[in-house]
Amino acid sequence: MNYSIISYILGWVLTIESIFMFIPCIVAAIYREKEGFAFLIVALLCLAIGLLRIRKKTKSQVFYAKEGFVTVALSWIIMSIFGALPFVINRDIPSFTDALFETISGFTTTGASILSDVEALSHCSLFWRSFTHWIGGMGVFVFLLAILPLTGGYNMHLMRAESPGPSVGKFVPKVRETAKILYAIYIVMTLVEIILLLFAGMPLFDSLTVSFGTAGTGGFGIKNTSIADYNMVIQAIISIFMILFGVNFGAYFLLLGNNKKDAFKLEEVHWYLIIIASAVAIITINTKDIFHNLFTAFHHALFQVASVITTTGYSTTDFDLWPQLSRAVLVIVMFIGACAGSTGGGIKVSRIIILVKSVKQELGYFIHPRSVKVIKMDNKPLSAKSIRGVNAFFVTYTLIFVVSLLIITFDNFDLVTNFTAVTATLNNIGPGLKLVGPTGNFGIFSPVAKYILMFDMLAGRLELYPILLLFTPSVWKKH
Amino acid sequence: MNYSIISYILGWVLTIESIFMFIPCIVAAIYREKEGFAFLIVALLCLAIGLLRIRKKTKSQVFYAKEGFVTVALSWIIMSIFGALPFVINRDIPSFTDALFETISGFTTTGASILSDVEALSHCSLFWRSFTHWIGGMGVFVFLLAILPLTGGYNMHLMRAESPGPSVGKFVPKVRETAKILYAIYIVMTLVEIILLLFAGMPLFDSLTVSFGTAGTGGFGIKNTSIADYNMVIQAIISIFMILFGVNFGAYFLLLGNNKKDAFKLEEVHWYLIIIASAVAIITINTKDIFHNLFTAFHHALFQVASVITTTGYSTTDFDLWPQLSRAVLVIVMFIGACAGSTGGGIKVSRIIILVKSVKQELGYFIHPRSVKVIKMDNKPLSAKSIRGVNAFFVTYTLIFVVSLLIITFDNFDLVTNFTAVTATLNNIGPGLKLVGPTGNFGIFSPVAKYILMFDMLAGRLELYPILLLFTPSVWKKH
Repeated sequence: MNYSIISYILGWVLTIESIFMFIPCIVAAIYREKEGFAFLIVALLCLAIGLLRIRKKTKSQVFYAKEGFVTVALSWIIMSIFGALPFVINRDIPSFTDALFETISGFTTTGASILSDVEALSHCSLFWRSFTHWIGGMGVFVFLLAILPLTGGYNMHLMRAESPGPSVGKFVPKVRETAKILYAIYIVMTLVEIILLLFAGMPLFDSLTVSFGTAGTGGFGIKNTSIADYNMVIQAIISIFMILFGVNFGAYFLLLGNNKKDAFKLEEVHWYLIIIASAVAIITINTKDIFHNLFTAFHHALFQVASVITTTGYSTTDFDLWPQLSRAVLVIVMFIGACAGSTGGGIKVSRIIILVKSVKQELGYFIHPRSVKVIKMDNKPLSAKSIRGVNAFFVTYTLIFVVSLLIITFDNFDLVTNFTAVTATLNNIGPGLKLVGPTGNFGIFSPVAKYILMFDMLAGRLELYPILLLFTPSVWKKH
Repeated sequence: MNYSIISYILGWVLTIESIFMFIPCIVAAIYREKEGFAFLIVALLCLAIGLLRIRKKTKSQVFYAKEGFVTVALSWIIMSIFGALPFVINRDIPSFTDALFETISGFTTTGASILSDVEALSHCSLFWRSFTHWIGGMGVFVFLLAILPLTGGYNMHLMRAESPGPSVGKFVPKVRETAKILYAIYIVMTLVEIILLLFAGMPLFDSLTVSFGTAGTGGFGIKNTSIADYNMVIQAIISIFMILFGVNFGAYFLLLGNNKKDAFKLEEVHWYLIIIASAVAIITINTKDIFHNLFTAFHHALFQVASVITTTGYSTTDFDLWPQLSRAVLVIVMFIGACAGSTGGGIKVSRIIILVKSVKQELGYFIHPRSVKVIKMDNKPLSAKSIRGVNAFFVTYTLIFVVSLLIITFDNFDLVTNFTAVTATLNNIGPGLKLVGPTGNFGIFSPVAKYILMFDMLAGRLELYPILLLFTPSVWKKH
């Protein structure tokens, strides 16, 4: 393990974070909030530590996949710890555990909150809370790689460790160029959403924060009622942008290139849209009596399915009051998640496709034991290694799920609360059902349960292994 | 598909079933119950159809894995249909759907009941109900193979399709001898339990039926309170025998041979006992306040854990009233299930071991991407094919689970009821929690939901694929 290079990169991460943290200081200046000083203090602290470390370049350039995973995992933890400090200092969230929960929930784009009254927060804190979604959505390393002239083989290792999905699609041969393109698409789409929301009558502050939450598929609202009090046009715009941010960014890259048609042929995007359409159809019919007409039912079904499949977590209505069928559909969609290579979480549509195909393959072996079958995706054969990887992911995911569920059960809440609390954090969604439903919050849990759920949020965002590797003793051996 | 040979074997299955069905006729004669005539009529009907078919041997001996799976799946369905008829005819369970549910629940050793008042049934019906557990526990084909001089390559295909676990352990080179040894062990162990229960003061009829339910890990009780009203010695005997019937029968075979020590080295049995011990310890501590002292808590914890991990489903107390932690432990243990090669259901301990090992292997690949790691079980390397098979099983299992859950949710019961109803049927356990808990029953569900749960019971008992293949169109093509 090359500790020197890891701490060097961590230095960069802190420097970047300090720059991001100056933005809430500006917000505080505009609203003349004294809570903003906390952000200034922590930003300067991050900058000092960061600059001190990156001043001297590290000698050894040894950097393998292992170092990549550990660096990414540690960066996210350190980013979250420093990101939580302002909330504690300015007393918006006095408990460090709660502030850390909220910040991890932010960076991992989960959107699960421990706050019962969001509206009591200062504007700068609300802004930072939503901005962490935006930073975490595309990933801090994608940002780092885009702006820094880092050389050496580690670029790919870092990007692979942070990006969601079973495989990393490099659009262009150079990692740095890929990262730049990704952030460019991300920024443009976010800006378009902000502008549309302003036109639809949303105040600027709300447009910014809600767009950050949509772009990162995070879901922190700045109102206690989430998105319920905005008009239906605003809600519809958010619905559409949630779905757009859940699409594999590779599709947008194809749209920008010469082979525009290929963007519409991606198998994962097809199934993503089919699943959304089916879930919306079922819920619309199932809830039409609650909303008195089909259109309103469709409006809320679309919003909620988009919110849940992209693992955003906004709500326009208390879906915990919907009939069992609609709630079950939502819970299933929570697990599926968005496309790989999007900002969304969950198991990912492409993994589900590969898993279903491997079941079909297995059934085929029972009928014709000696036949050779190849699993294809987008007409390209998948390697045995990637299929094994997807299977191992699914098993690891289930194990983490079960162990987490067991530990948080010590708090003695009901099964549905516990089950959906783990579902909502491991899949980076936000709200679950019952006590952690749209009208509840995660403040009810004991500190132990909160740390378990924080672990789940990080594990979910970083696709399990980087975080798990931190607990593997052999990783920490020196080379 | 060789239809001729399939119907020939089905003829044998019906003949065997008719012979089994004469036993409740004897019970009816002893208790002078007119309900017994129903069994006589159906037994004669089965005999007539069966004999008619097996009179003429089939010409083509073509029999592949595919035919094996289809034969086994169809046999279990036909066995269940004919097994349900007496209940309908003698009006003990007038609805055919309910009678079929009860019989499938019996043969698959699930023990989930649609009856709210078991004690209203006639003795012969109660006997048949419990006896189906015993037949289904070891498997009707193991029986068939043990007594019939069937020749040809199909023995192994039939046995593989019916026996639980990721691989079939043949004790001796000949399938027929293996089947004989299995049934011999099965009969002796059942007899020992019956005798011990008699000594502990249980009436003969109760000893017989309860032992059938233990041996097959079924769980139909003959009292509305299941096992709660018997004395603690009886309960303890049942606890121990449930655990014994959940052990891989390969261990007993080793005990009978020259390498007795090897029986105690089986990795699966070790983990099976470790899981039981851990679950019992957690529940004992967690429920000690309910039972006022540690010993009583331990007694019930042991009984309930043994009942659930072996997927038997007996109960001595309403565990739905236990604290959330104990209930969560029980639900997790429901999924794990017993050892492969036992009469128990669930995912099976050996599959869980292989899944956990494949996660460790995957983590290893992240640390040392170029290393080659072999997964071992009992110090023997596992083939890539069997690891792939276990992974595919787990994914298939999850898919069936989710789809079943979704469909039964249309009945609009709560999530815990629905979730544990699918858990209890797909794992062949019996009771779940809430409305299908120890004091509830499955009669609440709509016919559609009942048929889905019947599918789950059959899929669970036959390890998913035989039943799934019935729905694969290419299976039905002629050669």
